[in-house]
Amino acid sequence: MGSEDRKLRLGRRGFLGAAASVLAAAGARADAPDPAITEVQEWARVLGDGVATRPYGKPSQFEKHVVRRDVEWLTASRESSVSFTPLHELDGIITPNGLCFERHHAGIAEIGPQKHRLMVHGLVERPMVFTMAELRRFPGRTNRIYFLECAANSGMEWRGAQLNGCQFTHGMVHNVMYTGLPLKALLDHCGVRTNGKWLLVEGGDASLMTRSIPLDKAMKDCMVAWAMNGEALRPEQGYPLRLLVPGWEGNMWIKWLRRIEIGDQPWHQREETSKYTDLLADGRARRFTWIMDAKSVVTSPSPQAPPAAKGPNVLSGLAWSGRGTIKRVDVTLDGGRNWRPARIDGPVLPLSLVRFYAEFDWSGQELLIQSRAIDETGYVQPTKGELRQVRGVNSIYHNNGIQTWLVRADGQTENVEIS
Amino acid sequence: MGSEDRKLRLGRRGFLGAAASVLAAAGARADAPDPAITEVQEWARVLGDGVATRPYGKPSQFEKHVVRRDVEWLTASRESSVSFTPLHELDGIITPNGLCFERHHAGIAEIGPQKHRLMVHGLVERPMVFTMAELRRFPGRTNRIYFLECAANSGMEWRGAQLNGCQFTHGMVHNVMYTGLPLKALLDHCGVRTNGKWLLVEGGDASLMTRSIPLDKAMKDCMVAWAMNGEALRPEQGYPLRLLVPGWEGNMWIKWLRRIEIGDQPWHQREETSKYTDLLADGRARRFTWIMDAKSVVTSPSPQAPPAAKGPNVLSGLAWSGRGTIKRVDVTLDGGRNWRPARIDGPVLPLSLVRFYAEFDWSGQELLIQSRAIDETGYVQPTKGELRQVRGVNSIYHNNGIQTWLVRADGQTENVEIS
Repeated sequence: MGSEDRKLRLGRRGFLGAAASVLAAAGARADAPDPAITEVQEWARVLGDGVATRPYGKPSQFEKHVVRRDVEWLTASRESSVSFTPLHELDGIITPNGLCFERHHAGIAEIGPQKHRLMVHGLVERPMVFTMAELRRFPGRTNRIYFLECAANSGMEWRGAQLNGCQFTHGMVHNVMYTGLPLKALLDHCGVRTNGKWLLVEGGDASLMTRSIPLDKAMKDCMVAWAMNGEALRPEQGYPLRLLVPGWEGNMWIKWLRRIEIGDQPWHQREETSKYTDLLADGRARRFTWIMDAKSVVTSPSPQAPPAAKGPNVLSGLAWSGRGTIKRVDVTLDGGRNWRPARIDGPVLPLSLVRFYAEFDWSGQELLIQSRAIDETGYVQPTKGELRQVRGVNSIYHNNGIQTWLVRADGQTENVEIS
Repeated sequence: MGSEDRKLRLGRRGFLGAAASVLAAAGARADAPDPAITEVQEWARVLGDGVATRPYGKPSQFEKHVVRRDVEWLTASRESSVSFTPLHELDGIITPNGLCFERHHAGIAEIGPQKHRLMVHGLVERPMVFTMAELRRFPGRTNRIYFLECAANSGMEWRGAQLNGCQFTHGMVHNVMYTGLPLKALLDHCGVRTNGKWLLVEGGDASLMTRSIPLDKAMKDCMVAWAMNGEALRPEQGYPLRLLVPGWEGNMWIKWLRRIEIGDQPWHQREETSKYTDLLADGRARRFTWIMDAKSVVTSPSPQAPPAAKGPNVLSGLAWSGRGTIKRVDVTLDGGRNWRPARIDGPVLPLSLVRFYAEFDWSGQELLIQSRAIDETGYVQPTKGELRQVRGVNSIYHNNGIQTWLVRADGQTENVEIS
């Protein structure tokens, strides 16, 4: 038995072919047989439900706590509000469609795909209207995994630790595989005129959300998508059609996409002037702050997922960057005195969440857990203090500062800030 | 306007900033304004449902036809039966959890994670019993995307075209991202003795499904998984714990995994003797036919998803191989007289589904659509005729023959076989 094995003490030693004890200390030989092993369990005495009992399946009855949650005091109405992804309950890099965070400005529009249209017009040679069926027949269909983060994710934390749990501090992000068309294919088909430099993109719900997007970005990697994780977009994600603006703030990923106008300058709409700009300490506002900078968060341990016990534990978290690929994630257990690289596992794709792990042994001491992401540009995720020095505390958007979780001796875990 | 554009004729030309006609011919200028564009739509006049109306989200009301389906006459009871993935409605490579095909032998066991145990015993130094919490604390957690195909997928087609639609002919396959532990980590922890060469793996439902697995495979890439596509396994996929045996037949991916015994030879259980063996024409049976050979299917056009119209169309399909990575997929529209390589798009991972596309222009002639997969070993997916020459027609399992869809002049699409 190696020292690694001795240190682990996971699982309990059982009798040969017979029993082990739920009472026994970890790694110790059992004195009493474990009825969970030796007895025929209740679920093995009966036939369960048959196939297609649920033609569209649902999670287990034991997972009812794994849901999106909103914060009632955060917004005036639920039609213009947000619900958060339960990051602390998830693993890997795919967010299940039923748990992707929501952000609406006029509730969830329910649009029949037969009635939906996408118009492309303005400074183009051939203004066009597309039905959903026509988009599905258009050449160049493609699949990409991208994160989508609301610019206001972690926005409540600018003035100090507020919300107790990564679902609330960081849950305005999700990551799915999209299917659709490169926007470039549609724009080339319509023929953008040489003086066309900007796009106005508009949603079909009652809020008629509009944003300006530079043509360069549209031609580089934007997409119009009708599927996520293999199936049709969910209504709350813009069914039947949404825009993808990879790496850029979620507000620009127009849902229920109905209109793209080409112009020669930005439109300066509400959502890029009074909203989604960053008011600095001196009264000036940063505008067109589109890119989501490198960020990370430890999802476990975290306030909603404290350590299960002393001894071996697995720290886990997510990192992402709107500037490309995550190169490294460091973690610390002592508030930044000692950092070590986390183990990144699973697909490492540009503009996608990546999953990281770090095993540690917990003897019951207080922990100050942090993570910091480094992306391919060399950008290092800053502390919240560093961010505030540059941006002040008027901001709502683009808080990508390092998050700290305090694990107390009794295991209780809290959102804290350290200077 | 390039020749590619002229050939396309997709979308309809609209007025500048005003209107386009749903009536106008494709690519022609509109005469009447399109009310779908010019008028404020019903869904833009009202506020939709607010956030967290559905804490766990559901598909759109317009997607109710996208469900798993069973075939009533196929099995004697629904507790020992199968429901099929609606492949013709999906895109990309991720299968949503709610649509992953089901195969049960005693219905869906509903097992509480607090009560579940995994025992590892037999020829090991340290027999152990693990709780779910202990597995989550074990070092080495990892994420992998794998296809899972039932050995009986396409089994009804051995004796000729039977089932009309790829959901039924090929829908016993799905592809998700799993989270769990390499089985090697657990086996190393328990210390397999030098005479340990085989595993018996056992499920916890009323069928107590058991299979023998060679130790080499277990050590190479098998996993015990508790999450799929980011969230907990679904009950019908073995919640809270299942075995993954990447590239090998689905029957071995034991659900509700409760016991792993190490022995020095295979156990010759029912599921590897009377079932999941292939009876040849001369009366001998092929046994331990674990690996799922390279296979592919066109999911659109297909009987449940015929061509929408003449003119531009997108052919789409899936390919996979239990021997590694898909290297190429060829498609034909004329029953194999002319083949051309399809365009593979999205992640190309070993032992995972890959998505392929081929654009084509349909003038209304009869089509005989086929696809054939080639994997990294150079293996070429055979015709059904070639398979039968070697295996006869007694088989149920391991039919990876080339599938043919006939598209008639009126667009109706059927499952056919050509010699």
